[in-house]
Amino acid sequence: MPIYKAPVEDTLFLLNDVFHLDRYNNLPGFADASPDIVAAILNEAAKFCEDVLTPINHSGDQEGCTRHPDGRVTTPKGFKEAYKQFIDGGWVGMSAPAEFGGQGLPSLLSIIVNEYLASANLAFSMYPGLVQGAVAALLQHGSDELKAAYLPHLISGQWAGTMNLTEPHCGTDLGMLRTKAVKQGDGSYKITGTKIFISGGEQDLTENIIHLVLARIEGAPEGTKGISLFVVPKVMLRADGSLGDRNGVSCGSIEEKMGIHGSATCVMNYDGAIGWLVGAENRGLNAMFTMMNEARLGVGLQGLALSEVAYQNAVIYTKERLQGRAISGVKFPDKPADPIIVHPDVRRVLMTMRAFNEAARALVIWTALNGDIAHRSPEDKQRQAADDHMGLLTPVVKGVLTDLGFANAVMAQQVFGGHGYIVEHGMEQFVRDARIPMIYEGANGIQALDLVGRKLAKDGGRAIMAFFNEVQTYLKEHAGNEAMEPYVKPLGQSLAHLQQGTMWFMNNAMAKPDNAGAGSYDYMHLFGLVALGYMWCRIAEAAMEKSKADGAAPMLNAKLVTGRFFMERMLPETAIRLACIEAGAASMMELPAEAF
Amino acid sequence: MPIYKAPVEDTLFLLNDVFHLDRYNNLPGFADASPDIVAAILNEAAKFCEDVLTPINHSGDQEGCTRHPDGRVTTPKGFKEAYKQFIDGGWVGMSAPAEFGGQGLPSLLSIIVNEYLASANLAFSMYPGLVQGAVAALLQHGSDELKAAYLPHLISGQWAGTMNLTEPHCGTDLGMLRTKAVKQGDGSYKITGTKIFISGGEQDLTENIIHLVLARIEGAPEGTKGISLFVVPKVMLRADGSLGDRNGVSCGSIEEKMGIHGSATCVMNYDGAIGWLVGAENRGLNAMFTMMNEARLGVGLQGLALSEVAYQNAVIYTKERLQGRAISGVKFPDKPADPIIVHPDVRRVLMTMRAFNEAARALVIWTALNGDIAHRSPEDKQRQAADDHMGLLTPVVKGVLTDLGFANAVMAQQVFGGHGYIVEHGMEQFVRDARIPMIYEGANGIQALDLVGRKLAKDGGRAIMAFFNEVQTYLKEHAGNEAMEPYVKPLGQSLAHLQQGTMWFMNNAMAKPDNAGAGSYDYMHLFGLVALGYMWCRIAEAAMEKSKADGAAPMLNAKLVTGRFFMERMLPETAIRLACIEAGAASMMELPAEAF
Repeated sequence: MPIYKAPVEDTLFLLNDVFHLDRYNNLPGFADASPDIVAAILNEAAKFCEDVLTPINHSGDQEGCTRHPDGRVTTPKGFKEAYKQFIDGGWVGMSAPAEFGGQGLPSLLSIIVNEYLASANLAFSMYPGLVQGAVAALLQHGSDELKAAYLPHLISGQWAGTMNLTEPHCGTDLGMLRTKAVKQGDGSYKITGTKIFISGGEQDLTENIIHLVLARIEGAPEGTKGISLFVVPKVMLRADGSLGDRNGVSCGSIEEKMGIHGSATCVMNYDGAIGWLVGAENRGLNAMFTMMNEARLGVGLQGLALSEVAYQNAVIYTKERLQGRAISGVKFPDKPADPIIVHPDVRRVLMTMRAFNEAARALVIWTALNGDIAHRSPEDKQRQAADDHMGLLTPVVKGVLTDLGFANAVMAQQVFGGHGYIVEHGMEQFVRDARIPMIYEGANGIQALDLVGRKLAKDGGRAIMAFFNEVQTYLKEHAGNEAMEPYVKPLGQSLAHLQQGTMWFMNNAMAKPDNAGAGSYDYMHLFGLVALGYMWCRIAEAAMEKSKADGAAPMLNAKLVTGRFFMERMLPETAIRLACIEAGAASMMELPAEAF
Repeated sequence: MPIYKAPVEDTLFLLNDVFHLDRYNNLPGFADASPDIVAAILNEAAKFCEDVLTPINHSGDQEGCTRHPDGRVTTPKGFKEAYKQFIDGGWVGMSAPAEFGGQGLPSLLSIIVNEYLASANLAFSMYPGLVQGAVAALLQHGSDELKAAYLPHLISGQWAGTMNLTEPHCGTDLGMLRTKAVKQGDGSYKITGTKIFISGGEQDLTENIIHLVLARIEGAPEGTKGISLFVVPKVMLRADGSLGDRNGVSCGSIEEKMGIHGSATCVMNYDGAIGWLVGAENRGLNAMFTMMNEARLGVGLQGLALSEVAYQNAVIYTKERLQGRAISGVKFPDKPADPIIVHPDVRRVLMTMRAFNEAARALVIWTALNGDIAHRSPEDKQRQAADDHMGLLTPVVKGVLTDLGFANAVMAQQVFGGHGYIVEHGMEQFVRDARIPMIYEGANGIQALDLVGRKLAKDGGRAIMAFFNEVQTYLKEHAGNEAMEPYVKPLGQSLAHLQQGTMWFMNNAMAKPDNAGAGSYDYMHLFGLVALGYMWCRIAEAAMEKSKADGAAPMLNAKLVTGRFFMERMLPETAIRLACIEAGAASMMELPAEAF
């Protein structure tokens, strides 16, 4: 059965030595997050993930969720107890505002804990993960009454939340959605329609579930301009806030899926269910979009999380499994064979996963830190710059980290040979679970379009220019540093590829928009490689500084070697991504649809 | 539920117009394979695959195999009837020698039919697929008595065959195997040991199962030099050839796997089971190796097969699913949205799959044709050249086609968005099924090592030099042809990458063998891209010639466009593969094992 050890040491290195968290003590909540407190929190989270969630990950996959004839849904054995322990620990509201019962700590810390949760048990982690989305929606767009009624119970974790967007005929294209809302005399609405793919739409973990539902108010415009957001509780609240009658919403069925079996994916039937408007009429998509960066960052994180846990188990296997002899000469003559970690091709796989994990973790932390700055900084300009960063990097984090996270889960499984294909080893679960983050919260092709079609041109390209500027400034600062040359030189080349690709779109996509769509996926990955490469430079720099200050350490040396591996073996792919962008749409779009 | 339509037209184009099958009528069996006969056979095979096997693919995955307390194993509903229909059609013995009841047709045709079978139902296709391996082993290494006793029933399909190599502690490193064989007075052996991952080790399709088992004769040398091959029937034969008592071999359990649920993967317990030596004592690995090229080609084919069926279903979905509008302008104003095939990023996915499928099919046919030549040509030199080709290309076909076949199944699933993750759509089954060909019959990392460590240097590099020579000659012949320039020019560049990579190994791997291992995987993929690129040149050339002769046709135009897409978007990757090879082993091997 797979194990999991939360990478607390690596996280702390990133927080303290790479991103210098103490420099942000001017932001609300950050002063409370001193290095000691952060270490204590992460160690506590690690313990919960390792001891409580990991042991029910494989069994949860095997058992799955069950919908009973009366519409109830039960989660796998152990989930309910783990959830209680989780909310008793106050984890749900860690970064939520104190006025609604949260602890007001940086969101960054929640996001880091989410990595550990998702590594330990992705299916479980989705239940509290969706609460965070509901809290964000209500905080930003809810009326004071709605906030008072729902937020304290959501933030305590007593109640859960869901997001209801997709309908059978529309996912990406929400303009086609049909769920109806009819205004009642008392200011409430009656919601009717069917929503699919609703994670946690029904479960047995919480006494109430707060559904956030996109619907079209009677008479509203067609398309995306007529969509409103509603809050629809599973159980109605009485005037005193206590739980009353069931609302007209129920789970019609749960989906049989490739993975995340412990997460109940529900078809939700709204049958004149009573709901309340969140934000303005017909501005529902707007309300959803403000949550999307956080949600997509949270999904990108899952790619890293699965890659990390798959990597850890692959490492153990490569040290234990004896098979063949090192080509450079026998390493363990007393054993019947050498452990397979001696083989270069096995090393290639381990180093590839590791070089991704460590940089991806940095990228998530960097982006999450910008999320906190965007929400909490007192300075307008800093907030705006951070918000630009979030908007630009989010589709990259979501698309690239989930693509590569899945690829790494597959590589980790490969290391096990035939044993990796057998259910009991648990490696194939990581592959099945890692498959969904590429799809949900906007399939990765949509992320690429969001990046190229919206984020690049937004505000006259302000965000991408700022990104280029930051990386270029960094490269200039370290240009004369010989120790940094193996890192900054390749990054300089790849940054040039990214800039050239960006220019190519500017010159070729206006006249022929298909050229943008045709290169969008390659551009997203090109961007991801540059961002990861930049993270490796920052990590290598911090490792050198720390070595100077505290003396050499195996962990710091490993950073330098792994960073070089990334630069030599992974970053060069940017050249090909650029070549694909510059190939344009011609051969891709030439055939008529009938030719397929 | 997924559909499947066997690509008969494409196969016939390859056989007749690209590879000119009629030029090989001097080989035994080929004259019988006239274009009409071949078309009739393939259409018949297509019908069986489409009408009989496809409908039980998804249900077979859902139901899986069952081992009963008495050790019996039953296959999913419909498998038994389909198998009977399959053997009644004479499909098992299509390419087997007439003297044992076969039809003596080119093996090439069996291999093509195997593609269709694996597309329609990979799990089912493994049962007859393994018979072919057993037949090959007995034909090449069995005594006349063994041949007479077993071949007719195997070739008719009345009995099935298995391959028993892997043990719990050894897969790749067969030198460690422990299964024992003790010589009896009557020339037979008593076999004792446990074998795992035995596909079709027990089933309810045939009345007997002929196990080919690697074991170590008492007193034999340690390591790979003490391994012998035995034939061990599940049911013993009486002197008159009729079925007698059960032998001492039984299925201890079946594995719960990620996919191919309809194929029973058995733990086989040999408990003093009676077996007979196949080939010479201690030469078992040698006997296995002679079958390995064919078996690995058969597995590589599975990658293509899954990619093809996944592609077909993705195409249908992209034409039906309405979501969003074309960025180049609305295509279907009367519909609520355009079908997603209008979006460039969706096209990218379809074109990528298609550009692979059509070239991979050519590569398989080309290699299979060489297999026939190697076995059937009357000329020594031609046999040797064809055998060189087979040996060189087999690891490439196995490793590259299964890696890309899996990647394509994932891409096809992605096109479905959230629906692709739901079991009932069947796309996730293709992903789970496509995962195993990367692992079994030698994990792909082993294929890469076989290519770089054995095949390149074999006979002074004769095979690789012949390959280079063939492609270079082709490039020279078409150097002045303007219409061919979009194909031959990129191929020339990529061939240079492959040659440079080969040279790099020659210069750097002798002194430091880790450099060979470190670059082996990239080299395999570099080779695969060049081979597929060469196939696209041959296909494009044939399409142009056929257009000239018979007039333009949409299918021929599609070939030219798809080939250009391959050259522009897929082949350039060779540059990066070369860069990775030339990066060498340094950063990959620098960390001590404890650093992981």
